Order: sequence, then C-alpha cells, then structure tokens
Amino acid sequence: MRDVFHADLDALNSQLVAMSTSVTQAMRAASAALLSRDAVQARGVIDGDADINAMQYAVDDEVIDIMTRHQPIAGDLRFILGAVRIGTDLERMGDMAVHVAKIAERDAPGCAVPRTRPIFTAMSEIAIRIADKTTGILVSRDVLDATQFDLDDDEMDAQFDRLMRVLGEGWSHGAEAAVDVAMLGRSFERYADHAVRVAHQIVYLVTGEVHLGRES
Amino acid sequence: MRDVFHADLDALNSQLVAMSTSVTQAMRAASAALLSRDAVQARGVIDGDADINAMQYAVDDEVIDIMTRHQPIAGDLRFILGAVRIGTDLERMGDMAVHVAKIAERDAPGCAVPRTRPIFTAMSEIAIRIADKTTGILVSRDVLDATQFDLDDDEMDAQFDRLMRVLGEGWSHGAEAAVDVAMLGRSFERYADHAVRVAHQIVYLVTGEVHLGRES
Repeated sequence: MRDVFHADLDALNSQLVAMSTSVTQAMRAASAALLSRDAVQARGVIDGDADINAMQYAVDDEVIDIMTRHQPIAGDLRFILGAVRIGTDLERMGDMAVHVAKIAERDAPGCAVPRTRPIFTAMSEIAIRIADKTTGILVSRDVLDATQFDLDDDEMDAQFDRLMRVLGEGWSHGAEAAVDVAMLGRSFERYADHAVRVAHQIVYLVTGEVHLGRES
Repeated sequence: MRDVFHADLDALNSQLVAMSTSVTQAMRAASAALLSRDAVQARGVIDGDADINAMQYAVDDEVIDIMTRHQPIAGDLRFILGAVRIGTDLERMGDMAVHVAKIAERDAPGCAVPRTRPIFTAMSEIAIRIADKTTGILVSRDVLDATQFDLDDDEMDAQFDRLMRVLGEGWSHGAEAAVDVAMLGRSFERYADHAVRVAHQIVYLVTGEVHLGRES
C-alpha cells in the first residue's frame, strides 16, 4: 500500500516536472518572439497557455485522488499541499510568458523594446536559466541548489533596475513605449519570482523550514 | 466526529475571512496613503504585510492539522485544497497593497499620480468594493454573488485602459512617472484579479465547476 502511495507521489512530481518544462518552453518562445518580432511565434505561446492551465487542473485532480485513496500522514500532506502550491506558481509563470507574447504580437513587426534589447536578452537568459534550474530541483529535490536561487533573482533585479534607469535617463520613445518596456521587464521579473517561490516551496517540503521570501 | 470536523472547517473559513478583511484594510490604507501622499500610512501597510504572510502560514498549518486529524472525503478535500489556494491569492492581494504603498512612500510628499488622480480614486474604490464582496461570499458561500465579480473586473479593466490612454496622449511628466503610474495601475488591477480568483475558487468549491477565468 505504501509502495502504491509513493508511486502516486512520484507520478504527481512527474506532472510538476512536465509543467515546469512547458512553462520554460513558453518563456523561451515568448522571448524569441519578442526579440525577433515574430507574431506567429507569439500567437503560439498565447494559444498554448490553455494546455498549461489544463496541466494545473490535472495536478489538483491527482492531489484529490491521492488523498482520497490513501490516508497520508502529516509529512506526506506537506508534500501534497506543496504540489498544489507549486502548480499555482507554475501556472502563473505560463501567464507571464503570455504577457510577453501579447506585447510581442501587438508590436510585430515593430520592435517592442527600443534601446533596451540587450537588457531583455539578458533578462530572458536569466529567466530561462532559473526555470531550467527549477525543473532540475523538482527532479533532484536538492535543497542546496534551491538556496542558490536568490543569487539568480538578484541578477534579475539588477537587470530590472538597469531597465528603470534607461527609462529615467533621456528616454525619447514616448510614454507608451516606456510603459510597454516596464511591463515586459516586470513580466520577466515576476516569472523569475514565481520560479524562486517554487524553489522555496521545495526547501519547505524537504526541510519543513519556511524560507521567508523576498518576493513581495 | 463529523461535528468536530465541520467545526474545524468553519474555523478554517473564519481564518480566511479574517485574512480577507486584513488585505482589504491594507489596500484601503495603501490607497489613502497614495492619494493623500502620506508616507507614515504607507510605511504602516509595508510593515503590516508580515502579519498577512503569517496568516497564510497559519491557514496551511490548520489545513495540515485538519487532514491529519480527520480523514476527509473527496468533497471535503476539495474545500480544504480550495482554502490553500484562497490563502495564496489573499496573500498576493496583500503584496499588491504593499506595491502601492512602496511607491506612495517613495514619492511622498510628492504626488505619484499626476494627471491620473481621478482614475486612481476610481480604481481604489473598485478594488476595495471587490475585496469587500470577496469577504462577503467567503462568509455566505453565495455562488450567484460570485458570478457577478466579472462585471466589477470589467470596470477595473476599463479604468486601466483609461489610464493607458492618458499615458498615450501627450503625457508630459516623463517616462519614469509614466512607469510608476502604469505599475500602480497594474497593482490595483492584479489585486482585483486575485479577488476574482478567490470568487472563482468559491464557485468551484460549491459547484465543482471550473470557471475558466480571464485573469491571464
């Protein structure tokens, strides 16, 4: 009975890994669409979000199924609730990719990121790197790795500050473009924040310690 | 035994109601600080967020406690998982109030919302109205009420569009102020989105039907 239970938990974790892989791919495609001004690729990300949302509902259904069929003890319940929470954050990461894709689609073939392209190239790389690591620790449950996420997050924050400075110093592309650039920056930053929340959830699952995040 | 269980569920719901009341109060104070340029009031909202975060952890602990002591059936599990999800959305509403308060604090005694004060007055009223309704349906579990949330959300979206138009038409306060205004607008809008997600959760809890939200 315990073996069936643990096989079910492994299957649940595999669903989270698949979802994490999908939201990484979504942000990779959204970034490429933004930087290459590709409306078709942007549309693909927007349309693909329904699949990611469906994955979240599947995680919830699996959780309810596991709790109904087994009578988990407290430690296992912690893991199971963590899965619900991780599913929520992954779903929001998908939404952030959609935000990027929507601006990319609307502005294509024009450029949504005047004067700031190198910053967005960097933000995209950091976001995807963090998401890849998130998938990695979902697989490995390696808490040491998870604590490293704050450094990546600091890098993202530094790029966001750089973006704000560009908007503050002689910006000549108008308020609307400034708002788009700020919103895009915020979407990458929030994407990373949600990935870091997933990492902190895993720390909590493995150690039981609340890592009071800096995400607010 | 079932009576103890339902008393525990009622206590869990009361925790959510208290949390919803707190995040409503947080946004009320953050809005007042923004509109009256009051740095002290803004700081109060920022410092108070730790209490809201603590309430979320208390909800999670209560959930684990309930599931450990009772062996809930599927329908009850749905409610219990819904409570976890609602706690997450309420915590994010608190974060949005903090975002507003941080900009208000930084710019006080200056005005963070040049030319857009009437729009922010409206957004604040809508946000607080939605949050008050959220608390109300947490108490009443009235699904009919919950379906009305989309109309409030549309009103919020209309104000946000109005804000974007002001930024697009001859904005003369510079890119930095435009970004602040856009970010503030987004914080109010996201606050409302999270409240609507809570309402949709309650629909799901009561009817079992997924309301595919428009929140992304």
